Amino acid sequence: MKTSADLTAKVPAGSAGGPRGPVGRPAGAAGVTGVTGVTGGVTAGEVLTPYLQARAGDFLRGLRLHAESGADTTGAEEAARSLRAAARRIGGTLHTFRPLLDAAWADQLRAELAWLSGTLALEHACTSRLVRLVDALSRLSSGSGPVPAARGAGGAGLTVGAARAGALLERQLTLARTRAHSAALQALGSSRFHAVADAVALLASEVPLGPAGTAPAVEVLDAPAEAVERRLLDAVAGLPLARAAHPYNAEALGLAAGEAQDAPWHQTRLLLRLHRYASEVLHTRTSPDPVLYEAGRALDRHRDAAEAATAAATAARTPRIAPATAYALGVLHADQRHEVEAARFAFQNAWRRATAAVP
Amino acid sequence: MKTSADLTAKVPAGSAGGPRGPVGRPAGAAGVTGVTGVTGGVTAGEVLTPYLQARAGDFLRGLRLHAESGADTTGAEEAARSLRAAARRIGGTLHTFRPLLDAAWADQLRAELAWLSGTLALEHACTSRLVRLVDALSRLSSGSGPVPAARGAGGAGLTVGAARAGALLERQLTLARTRAHSAALQALGSSRFHAVADAVALLASEVPLGPAGTAPAVEVLDAPAEAVERRLLDAVAGLPLARAAHPYNAEALGLAAGEAQDAPWHQTRLLLRLHRYASEVLHTRTSPDPVLYEAGRALDRHRDAAEAATAAATAARTPRIAPATAYALGVLHADQRHEVEAARFAFQNAWRRATAAVP
Repeated sequence: MKTSADLTAKVPAGSAGGPRGPVGRPAGAAGVTGVTGVTGGVTAGEVLTPYLQARAGDFLRGLRLHAESGADTTGAEEAARSLRAAARRIGGTLHTFRPLLDAAWADQLRAELAWLSGTLALEHACTSRLVRLVDALSRLSSGSGPVPAARGAGGAGLTVGAARAGALLERQLTLARTRAHSAALQALGSSRFHAVADAVALLASEVPLGPAGTAPAVEVLDAPAEAVERRLLDAVAGLPLARAAHPYNAEALGLAAGEAQDAPWHQTRLLLRLHRYASEVLHTRTSPDPVLYEAGRALDRHRDAAEAATAAATAARTPRIAPATAYALGVLHADQRHEVEAARFAFQNAWRRATAAVP
Repeated sequence: MKTSADLTAKVPAGSAGGPRGPVGRPAGAAGVTGVTGVTGGVTAGEVLTPYLQARAGDFLRGLRLHAESGADTTGAEEAARSLRAAARRIGGTLHTFRPLLDAAWADQLRAELAWLSGTLALEHACTSRLVRLVDALSRLSSGSGPVPAARGAGGAGLTVGAARAGALLERQLTLARTRAHSAALQALGSSRFHAVADAVALLASEVPLGPAGTAPAVEVLDAPAEAVERRLLDAVAGLPLARAAHPYNAEALGLAAGEAQDAPWHQTRLLLRLHRYASEVLHTRTSPDPVLYEAGRALDRHRDAAEAATAAATAARTPRIAPATAYALGVLHADQRHEVEAARFAFQNAWRRATAAVP
């Protein structure tokens, strides 16, 4: 297997362009940080502007849909999702291509978008965490696979406790979701939000570029995207991928080590997303690389499972719960940490395939 | 990957010998069921007798060592281990090659040896189960891997509970071990045991053959070993190996399904052992196939982990335990079921390699 260190070595620090095979592209094909697809005489601003304007349009559409959704919960969720997606993409682009933009404006808007998407994400996170945990409990207590659940040793204790654990988690996560929902509604009604919406509406008509924004795209667009890619490669190089490639290494099950161990994976997830957005900017007509997409999905799953495990552990610290409930929560916690390990395995698999084409 | 069904199809039912590539041997090499290594004019009895006599010698040596060990616990354990190993091999040989032996004698001695090795195995099983569980608890609560255990979410609850869970398991399994120890001592002092020892002492000087025992080895020794191999292949063909080959399939984690799901794997473990003993009889000078040995080790681990998971579940049903204790036992149970799944993965890996050489 190629190590990410090899890859990093292949990205010449500070070099502007030149043919090479970046992450997720077969050698010789259009690269993420290459300016392929950008025609000769185009300025950086002429590449950034339509992308940011399109995302600003998505944002405003999401906002209108949200206002129109009223009591339609599904519609409101859908609208919040597209608002978040647009906010993340605008924020990511402002971050990556900051050197080409009006820096003060970019920093300010990015911070506000981060606040907004963070606030909106919370409700969705509570819902999906609850679904994940309740599904896992039902899988664990009913027994998966073709063999009928019957006289299993753990069965009795787990079935008794699983129902109560499920009820406890539902109570706790529903409460958290309700709070997140109120916070989101409050945010969307705030003057702070209206200022963000105004800024995005302005962005839809005009993108404030910096002096470098008028330089030819071939000269200046490559370096910022390359910097993101380099950070991603460095982050991946720091991950214990060789260990993750061994199935059942039980590394993620050292429960006490959870958070400290998970952080570099979470960081890689964010960098991979930034990298994906940067590649969207540069290759507007290319569909995203499926293997990198898969790697990103694995890291999403890693984050979700890690947070679900934490929620199970938190629920287990509720005072005066029955031992059977605590037992089921312990099983659930370990199960979700097992999912964390499985997600790492899936990530290294996808990553290895994504980078295998690099010569 | 070759399926075991392919393999089974390659073993012609009822055929006596002929060149073919059996399990765990490269095609063309000395096969398990082939009579390679047995010279032309030798009778079946002349192959069986030295093997059984050697194992009877091992048994008697183990017995003497046990008597001499006195207060030396390690010595007594070592002696019990060789007694058990010899008893299992004699019993397995009597079972597999029953058609060539005095059947009534073989059945009777085999039943008595099964009783003896079962009784002796219990104490060892309690000890190793306790070691396995305490090790797992310490791994789970301290956090494995290079990252220091620190502020993990599950850490606090688990550390509190892990110590109490460990103490509870130690109490329960030490009690079980003490009972097993008394039972073993009682068995070794019983007239029933003396009768077994006498029978084995007789076996060391003379093996009671049946009429077929005087037939040429090339004609009669192959079929019984082949029958065992066929049963093994059938058992493996019934296992969900394709599923086991997918890491993190979470199949073994359906806790309620545990026992029913584990049984075919346990059965395969016993058949693989019988197969190994039969191959020892036929290839006295060949070292055991390392890949089949590895497959057998994986099934041992499968059995140990499944039983440890059951012990954790049983401990969790102790009345009036603290929630933190129950929580740690739940984590431990899931961890051991995870080990069950890992052992299945390891088995299918080893088995695939063992059978890959079959054309």
